[in-house]
Amino acid sequence: IATKLPKVGTTIFSVMSQLAQQHKAVNLGQGFPDFEPPQGLRDALTRAMNEGRNQYAPMHGTAALREQIALKTERLYGRRLDVDTDITLTSGATEAIFAAIAATVRAGEEVIVFDPAYDCYEPAIELQGARAVHIPLTVPAFAIDWQRVRDAVTPKTRMIMINTPHNPSGAVLSADDLEQLAEIVRDTEIVVLSDEVYEHIVYDGARHESVLRHPELAGRSIVVSSFGKTYHCTGWKVGYAVAPAALSAEFRKVHQYLTFCTFHPAQVAFAEFMASTPQHYLELPAFYQAKRDRFRALLAPSRFKLLDVPGGYFQLVDYSAIRDEDDLVFSRWLVEQGGVAAIPLTPFYERAPGTRLLRLCFAKSDATMEAAAERLCKL
Amino acid sequence: IATKLPKVGTTIFSVMSQLAQQHKAVNLGQGFPDFEPPQGLRDALTRAMNEGRNQYAPMHGTAALREQIALKTERLYGRRLDVDTDITLTSGATEAIFAAIAATVRAGEEVIVFDPAYDCYEPAIELQGARAVHIPLTVPAFAIDWQRVRDAVTPKTRMIMINTPHNPSGAVLSADDLEQLAEIVRDTEIVVLSDEVYEHIVYDGARHESVLRHPELAGRSIVVSSFGKTYHCTGWKVGYAVAPAALSAEFRKVHQYLTFCTFHPAQVAFAEFMASTPQHYLELPAFYQAKRDRFRALLAPSRFKLLDVPGGYFQLVDYSAIRDEDDLVFSRWLVEQGGVAAIPLTPFYERAPGTRLLRLCFAKSDATMEAAAERLCKL
Ligand SMILES: CSCCC(=O)C(=O)O
Ligand SMILES: CSCCC(=O)C(=O)O
Repeated sequence: IATKLPKVGTTIFSVMSQLAQQHKAVNLGQGFPDFEPPQGLRDALTRAMNEGRNQYAPMHGTAALREQIALKTERLYGRRLDVDTDITLTSGATEAIFAAIAATVRAGEEVIVFDPAYDCYEPAIELQGARAVHIPLTVPAFAIDWQRVRDAVTPKTRMIMINTPHNPSGAVLSADDLEQLAEIVRDTEIVVLSDEVYEHIVYDGARHESVLRHPELAGRSIVVSSFGKTYHCTGWKVGYAVAPAALSAEFRKVHQYLTFCTFHPAQVAFAEFMASTPQHYLELPAFYQAKRDRFRALLAPSRFKLLDVPGGYFQLVDYSAIRDEDDLVFSRWLVEQGGVAAIPLTPFYERAPGTRLLRLCFAKSDATMEAAAERLCKL
Repeated sequence: IATKLPKVGTTIFSVMSQLAQQHKAVNLGQGFPDFEPPQGLRDALTRAMNEGRNQYAPMHGTAALREQIALKTERLYGRRLDVDTDITLTSGATEAIFAAIAATVRAGEEVIVFDPAYDCYEPAIELQGARAVHIPLTVPAFAIDWQRVRDAVTPKTRMIMINTPHNPSGAVLSADDLEQLAEIVRDTEIVVLSDEVYEHIVYDGARHESVLRHPELAGRSIVVSSFGKTYHCTGWKVGYAVAPAALSAEFRKVHQYLTFCTFHPAQVAFAEFMASTPQHYLELPAFYQAKRDRFRALLAPSRFKLLDVPGGYFQLVDYSAIRDEDDLVFSRWLVEQGGVAAIPLTPFYERAPGTRLLRLCFAKSDATMEAAAERLCKL
């Protein structure tokens, strides 16, 4: 059978996690914490199972969890959501991104994405028979050059995808960025898809500039988030999409036939835990900032140059003082010989700019960070 | 935004479950048990959470669970699977069906489906820009007329979808059916997609004729199953696809960007429970046959005519002795006035044949069945 996705191989995250295991490397590649979700959350899940919440959840998610998401959205971003129409729970943010694209983008249309772009974006676009139009972010700030966006918009542009805090760079969009985006999409039929899975991980007192803070943009956007990054349970695969009613209706048409609903007991548990422990996500910036700062201190004696990290849980490092070879080659060498798995940036580019950068995940225990730093400082 | 799926509304399952709640009807509509998954399985899930299995599972599923699926497949169907390449865990059978279609069917191609067809098939086909070619099953046996299939095959036919035991009718395919299918697809590039989520629920001593028993067909098929129906946990959303390596590779390209992986602790729990308690699925036919027979005995005094139920957990009933109106109207009346939610068949047809049939789910406790039967016998 001929492939529909000729460009797609196994995702770099799986490749690197497998190599990490094989070479007994410290795995700072694939982005997941090596610590656990709160015990109270796990206990709530067990209770949900033992209290008979094991059959299908409502297709768009449980009412209690949608209610909690609405409360949080109003508290943090000042936006009132309609609990019935605007929120849909999904099997991770990945499903939400796929459903958003499948529901709105047609064959022959164009979707603007910013490189480096998370690797699920383009295949989802290609499966619609549409085309991803890649705009590189500036280096090393990983900012959007809005003039390039204006130049890239055509009558075929159906969607612009943004991601803040950005994976892999950690860059965050500003209120001014959102304003520029709003100007570009005004009076067009462009839908904005905003991937905000690291919404609660923003540093140095900055606030997360969610699209949901911007009424005009929010009225034409699908905003995607995830519980995995916030509650240290990436393997639970619960995410959600927020969109105005008309867009949500189209989103749900796809979602209901993509997965129908997501793991029911976890939805019950998240609703209960969010209601009882809202400080969890409020304290997350401080929690991860301590990790970021500790990791940076550990790497200070190394020959890696550390880029700024405004958000997310990844540290980009410039390795050009150590070796002058491309990141695919260097990351391979690093996991095999250096004992540390990292993620190269090339797979997230249409045309890789030849930067000498790797992504390291610092959502790790002190012991893991120390073990990795010891190896990285030897290079 | 114009819809990409003009024919799609809210799935009849959600509609009926909502009406059931609203009118306090006994819900025999949406197919889910009103009893719980085994305590040992729930305990295994809790253990998995508390033993640190909360981050991403491998994209194609945990090794232990793939191993158990391979063991079961060899034991029941005599087919040896390659644990690394042939099995992929998904977020329910729904995701597996969508991924199978998205991975193999292109714009302009045709997929043969048999009506009544489970309602997620056609939207998944349409989203590829492909066309569903509907062949009605015979009534009342819900058998495939293979001559019609031969007549429907064109150079554009990319896939034939079968479903055994069949939802909503409970009909099962025979070894001869599989042989006829094999003859049709031989020397073509047609992929077979076999939805076998009720594989363990076949009655009267019959054996499930899985496509996996048929070496020639298995070599070109994607076979989909689910843990939800077998372990009474439809809300856990763990399913899987079995396919030969080359087809699996294409399937996984889509799966990895559709959901990436499914709920990790449940995968650990299923693997443990299948290893310790293989009798669970071996005893399932007797368990559900007792329910089927009890339900039929309860309805015997009613004016509904009961169709045969060779497999699955649904009873089709002919209501023509009660009212002569179409099934959408009658099912609406039944949930509002009669106090029982059922599923009409019309939504599963391209051209509904005007049968006077409803689907009732008997995956229910004795008390639920009795409450429903009391109401149904009054009509
Ligand atoms: C789905 S595996 C990748 C996890 C992740 O978000 C990342 O590493 O960037
Ligand atoms: C996904 S809700 C429908 C459940 C089901 O399989 C059925 O009722 O047929």
